Amino acid sequence: MSTPDPSARAVGDPTGLHRVLEPPGVLPQAAQRLDTRAELWPDEVRIRVERLNLDAASFRQLERSHGGDGDEVRTAVLDIIRTRGKMQNPETGSGGMLVGRVEEVGESSPLGLQVGDRVATLVSLTLTPLVIEDGLERWDGKSEQVPADGYAVLFGRSIAARIPDDLPTELSLSVMDVCGAPALTQRVVRQYTDRRPVVAVIGGAGKSGSLSLAAARHAGAARTIGVVPTQGEAALLHEAGLADAVALADARDPVALAHAVAEAGGPADVTVVCVDVPGCEGGAILATAESGTVIFFSMATSFSAAALGAEGLAADVTMLIGNGYTPGHADYAMSLLRAEDGVRRLFERRL
Amino acid sequence: MSTPDPSARAVGDPTGLHRVLEPPGVLPQAAQRLDTRAELWPDEVRIRVERLNLDAASFRQLERSHGGDGDEVRTAVLDIIRTRGKMQNPETGSGGMLVGRVEEVGESSPLGLQVGDRVATLVSLTLTPLVIEDGLERWDGKSEQVPADGYAVLFGRSIAARIPDDLPTELSLSVMDVCGAPALTQRVVRQYTDRRPVVAVIGGAGKSGSLSLAAARHAGAARTIGVVPTQGEAALLHEAGLADAVALADARDPVALAHAVAEAGGPADVTVVCVDVPGCEGGAILATAESGTVIFFSMATSFSAAALGAEGLAADVTMLIGNGYTPGHADYAMSLLRAEDGVRRLFERRL
Repeated sequence: MSTPDPSARAVGDPTGLHRVLEPPGVLPQAAQRLDTRAELWPDEVRIRVERLNLDAASFRQLERSHGGDGDEVRTAVLDIIRTRGKMQNPETGSGGMLVGRVEEVGESSPLGLQVGDRVATLVSLTLTPLVIEDGLERWDGKSEQVPADGYAVLFGRSIAARIPDDLPTELSLSVMDVCGAPALTQRVVRQYTDRRPVVAVIGGAGKSGSLSLAAARHAGAARTIGVVPTQGEAALLHEAGLADAVALADARDPVALAHAVAEAGGPADVTVVCVDVPGCEGGAILATAESGTVIFFSMATSFSAAALGAEGLAADVTMLIGNGYTPGHADYAMSLLRAEDGVRRLFERRL
Repeated sequence: MSTPDPSARAVGDPTGLHRVLEPPGVLPQAAQRLDTRAELWPDEVRIRVERLNLDAASFRQLERSHGGDGDEVRTAVLDIIRTRGKMQNPETGSGGMLVGRVEEVGESSPLGLQVGDRVATLVSLTLTPLVIEDGLERWDGKSEQVPADGYAVLFGRSIAARIPDDLPTELSLSVMDVCGAPALTQRVVRQYTDRRPVVAVIGGAGKSGSLSLAAARHAGAARTIGVVPTQGEAALLHEAGLADAVALADARDPVALAHAVAEAGGPADVTVVCVDVPGCEGGAILATAESGTVIFFSMATSFSAAALGAEGLAADVTMLIGNGYTPGHADYAMSLLRAEDGVRRLFERRL
């Protein structure tokens, strides 16, 4: 292995700027292409990759645009990673996360990891230098969970969580991938100090949705409403026991959605959008009470549709962009999974 | 004029659903095409249009894609309005607002308007049925302010503000167009009850930016920092006296932006993004203190760039989608304009 120029190594940046090849000066997430060399800057960590977990919106877009042909989806993912030096779907802008084992730790890494630790990265693949070395040959292209061999690099300002010993890896990975949602839901619900809010979760039977329902109840919601699109999901969510009420509606139909939430005990003080389909902004706003809050966790959210939708409805609601990072988010999500059998069952069904 | 079917008129919806032609069931903002018939449903109001004020991001996109040719820009705007029954730029998703005189008031309109009132609509043009009758012949296609003759329709749940008698119309219109920004900035700053926050406004010499700076100071910010991209704008903002510090940086360069804000007394507890250029998400996040808030008012904001950018930087910041509506927003913005000569001068320069 060749060693990077020491003067270059000395200027490594905690946000990974030193790995950006083009365009220069942007953060790694916004970059077209990253430097994927295996040699580490002093504050970096290299991970031997075992598995990628693609973002749901990204995987679905790839599946759609290749007519569900797994070989084509695999080729498309390999092309993206080779071209960009990271897994970032150019259409959805989203990536996913990975699991692997720590291979090397730079002498000044602040992450506290040891060689051999089994970890999941909690920063997005959209900014993580990544090299695939096995052509993803063990993946059929038909699931978001991608067995892989290769390596990835973590920067100084990054997050990786050790994978619990007591849970199956796929389950842990799947939980960590969406752990920002329950953490932010908890925070918003706890901000109600004078009364307990009604919380509606759109997509309540999904991964981030079921965790958000559990978080809302745990944080003291007066009532939790899970909204799902089909009778099948309604039955699953009923059985999981995570919502005080289950409502059936197409989230893209604003009037139907608002009506369903109202019937189930709404309008909601807090509405959490966890469905990865476009066009749910208007309905989420319309389902939310005056002075309420909408948390958008779906990567399919359109900024302008949300901003103009609220204005167009003269709706005085606070709209939050779901931040994937809240301190302690992974541990919190794991604790909800351990405490709520209903959450665990819903996750296990999706593995 | 033909009269709409009375049974259809009876089901008019306050959000304007009854005017959506395609696709059915979506809110007017999300619609491809609206019904622009002049006859009113009972809760509607018809406005005789005098002037459109195009959204800045939309106008700039049109200008760019037609190489600054005013005739082509005019043709493009007419095409959009004719095809969609509303002014919504398909590229930016944004619209603007309009000024006009109330022509007819439906018998059950809740808006409190009288025939003859001179008003500005404070809901977006993206959801307002609009017909242009003069081919925009008085507009050279080179400015966001578009003299026009035609009509527009307001729904039951809509907002229109009477235009003050003591201010020039163009000035009022220009203020009302961005009045959501100072109102939300004020609200966020006032939420700091234990201490006074540092507020940075990216694009501080612009319309929404200068009002947001004035609002931040008025609401009790400890320090206001205006960030601008050029020496010329820096001089203007200095002269306006709206910011405690003026910083010079390209908002698309995250590292430069964060550095400039830090030098000017940051990091910011509250960062307000008011520049209509893409790629400012990372810098805004990086310029904001841990546990701080970023308010995105630019329609050029990318939801996924913001969400993944914060996650990628392990940044625990609250990110708000700038809602164009806050109760009392127009009056508040007008009061800032009247109180602050610096704001008024910056606005008048842009008319």
